[in-house]
Amino acid sequence: MAKIAVLGYGTVGSGVVEVIEHNGGLIAKRTGEALEVKYILDIRDFPGDPYEDRIVHDIGVILEDPQVTVICETMGGEEPAFSFSKKALQAGKSVCTSNKELVANHGAELIALAEENRCNYLFEASVGGGIPIIRPLNTSLTAEHVTEITGILNGTTNYILTKMKTQQAPFEKLLKRAQEKGYAERNPEADIEGYDACRKIAILGSLMTGRTVDYRKIYTEGISRITPEDFAYADAMGCTIKLLATVKEEEDGFLAAVAPSLLDNENPLSGVNNVFNAISVRGNMQGETMYYGKGAGKLATASAVVADVIDCVKHPGKHVICLWDSEELVLKDFSAVQSRFFVRTAIADEETVSELFGDVKKLHLPGRPEEFGFVTAEMSQAEFAQKASQLPGFLSRIRIKD
Amino acid sequence: MAKIAVLGYGTVGSGVVEVIEHNGGLIAKRTGEALEVKYILDIRDFPGDPYEDRIVHDIGVILEDPQVTVICETMGGEEPAFSFSKKALQAGKSVCTSNKELVANHGAELIALAEENRCNYLFEASVGGGIPIIRPLNTSLTAEHVTEITGILNGTTNYILTKMKTQQAPFEKLLKRAQEKGYAERNPEADIEGYDACRKIAILGSLMTGRTVDYRKIYTEGISRITPEDFAYADAMGCTIKLLATVKEEEDGFLAAVAPSLLDNENPLSGVNNVFNAISVRGNMQGETMYYGKGAGKLATASAVVADVIDCVKHPGKHVICLWDSEELVLKDFSAVQSRFFVRTAIADEETVSELFGDVKKLHLPGRPEEFGFVTAEMSQAEFAQKASQLPGFLSRIRIKD
Repeated sequence: MAKIAVLGYGTVGSGVVEVIEHNGGLIAKRTGEALEVKYILDIRDFPGDPYEDRIVHDIGVILEDPQVTVICETMGGEEPAFSFSKKALQAGKSVCTSNKELVANHGAELIALAEENRCNYLFEASVGGGIPIIRPLNTSLTAEHVTEITGILNGTTNYILTKMKTQQAPFEKLLKRAQEKGYAERNPEADIEGYDACRKIAILGSLMTGRTVDYRKIYTEGISRITPEDFAYADAMGCTIKLLATVKEEEDGFLAAVAPSLLDNENPLSGVNNVFNAISVRGNMQGETMYYGKGAGKLATASAVVADVIDCVKHPGKHVICLWDSEELVLKDFSAVQSRFFVRTAIADEETVSELFGDVKKLHLPGRPEEFGFVTAEMSQAEFAQKASQLPGFLSRIRIKD
Repeated sequence: MAKIAVLGYGTVGSGVVEVIEHNGGLIAKRTGEALEVKYILDIRDFPGDPYEDRIVHDIGVILEDPQVTVICETMGGEEPAFSFSKKALQAGKSVCTSNKELVANHGAELIALAEENRCNYLFEASVGGGIPIIRPLNTSLTAEHVTEITGILNGTTNYILTKMKTQQAPFEKLLKRAQEKGYAERNPEADIEGYDACRKIAILGSLMTGRTVDYRKIYTEGISRITPEDFAYADAMGCTIKLLATVKEEEDGFLAAVAPSLLDNENPLSGVNNVFNAISVRGNMQGETMYYGKGAGKLATASAVVADVIDCVKHPGKHVICLWDSEELVLKDFSAVQSRFFVRTAIADEETVSELFGDVKKLHLPGRPEEFGFVTAEMSQAEFAQKASQLPGFLSRIRIKD
């Protein structure tokens, strides 16, 4: 019987307990021994809860119990999660977490600490909820030189964009509906401005390169300026619009970005709808593989945490190699990154468009005589910004996924 | 330096050598030591090949060399692959294979032999080429009760169906084109009749249930009777047609089948086109996850073999738990399996349709006054066959994916 502790009895923490309760028999068969939740740390009490007697308020009880070998950190946020995780690892107890902030901020340090203490810091649930992506990167794509990871990593924004496409409704209305359905938080900034996706791509980029991608240095743009009209243009071009988070190795360096992007309907990410997430990984031997599923949700996320626990219990005293060094990955200056752009402009000034952007094909939508759209050649962000600033009637632009 | 041997220097075998050659530095970093191909077993010689001096014709040389710890079996077919694999495992050497026939026929036995000898029999490359699916099932979805696996597991048929949809060309013409492009073999029966997909779903079903699914007992139907007209109907219903291989746990037992199926365009498998494969897995906690990529091809498949090799080298002397028992999984009698059916019938006999199938909505396609289509209620295969035999003007039927 492997004894574990859960830190934080919120959505994911209670999900972990539920998954172990529900699938305990199967888990025992696969693990070689049963899992038992011995402690649940929370500042609250839970009178009447079936696990009431496991609730503790003092992390010391857990850290000092030699029976506890694995800890699920499902508290979220920086502190006290960071201190607790460090202490657990120092005590030789593996930590399995869904805490993307902590992983993005301190992944390398916590992995190194785990290695020193012959235990593990695992974080499958921190990216893509229930979708297996961290473990495939670390254990399945091991013969690959991975050159790009691009994902739809945030369910809230993907839900809003999907509905904007299918129902032609504006952003504000869809955000409100997402909040009503519980898909968006009351303070939705972290989702809609791309900050959530940014932390996740930083984690994936760190695993891809083995160095630390500082999420604060990733160019990040949200979806609040995308409109149903943009989707009408996209549709006319055989494309759709998704919030894509990307990290990519190019000849002259690495780029990382989170931004709404126009992508071809042939791209498998284009069919990922509603709250689903998907991550596409490009390797030099096998080309593209993609991983799809629920990017959030209590049980999906908890299932990924428990899979990490099972991994730890199956390999006692063994540190699983995870190449993520504290050395920072230098990213290309985003202003130098090349893209093509889809531009919408008021129709008044067709000549200036040609002068600035050359011979572009103009796309007119029926019923919108006052504007047109066009696709630029590939150019740097800086060059584009400079040209766009000179374009009278400039309405909007969206980068095109290459 | 870990020494390995490759059995069979054909497409996949030479791919294994190429992957190790090309990504050797990265692989060494991830594995903790470099991989070296010490022997290549083949009946042929390869004068002028850079690996000419590693070629051997006698398996004994490999089996008796204690330096060799991992063997890649990329010969294909039953014998001598089966004998060689058994001998290797008995000698404590792990075997990594792309040989789906052998895995489908003898998976349980070879895994048990590996366990006895504290080594591994790994077969990621046997299903879905380069797509990580076996290892995610065994190591990532460990907290899940998996209740269904449905996949597009054959690239040749998926290419033909994709082109039939987009180019409205008939089966025979597209098969010929697939053969010209090298996507289909000269003798294409194994692909187009579904036998290839059948072996793969047998492997996945065995891993899902922990018992052996006998591929000879899986209902299997190919795509040769699908026509562009079927796609026209599908399109009008917001659907597409794919060759789906399924294994599913239902309340009253397990079903397994390979058959062309009509599936809704909202289903993520519907967007998997051309030679790509994808596998959708349904778990009781996290719902659906899907794995997508190149289902075949030299380097994609070889990359999966090498990932298995890396796994073995990282865990010397350790058998990785793989629950696949030799006990046979009893499948539901297929004639009792329930489906809805899409039926096409000559228009002459509308009344009989209503008598046999009740109040169904008739779908008429423009320009085809001589026939119509309809969707039946759910009924058993036997019941449907009986009704269809009484339907004058019956043209064709396709099962509908639930």
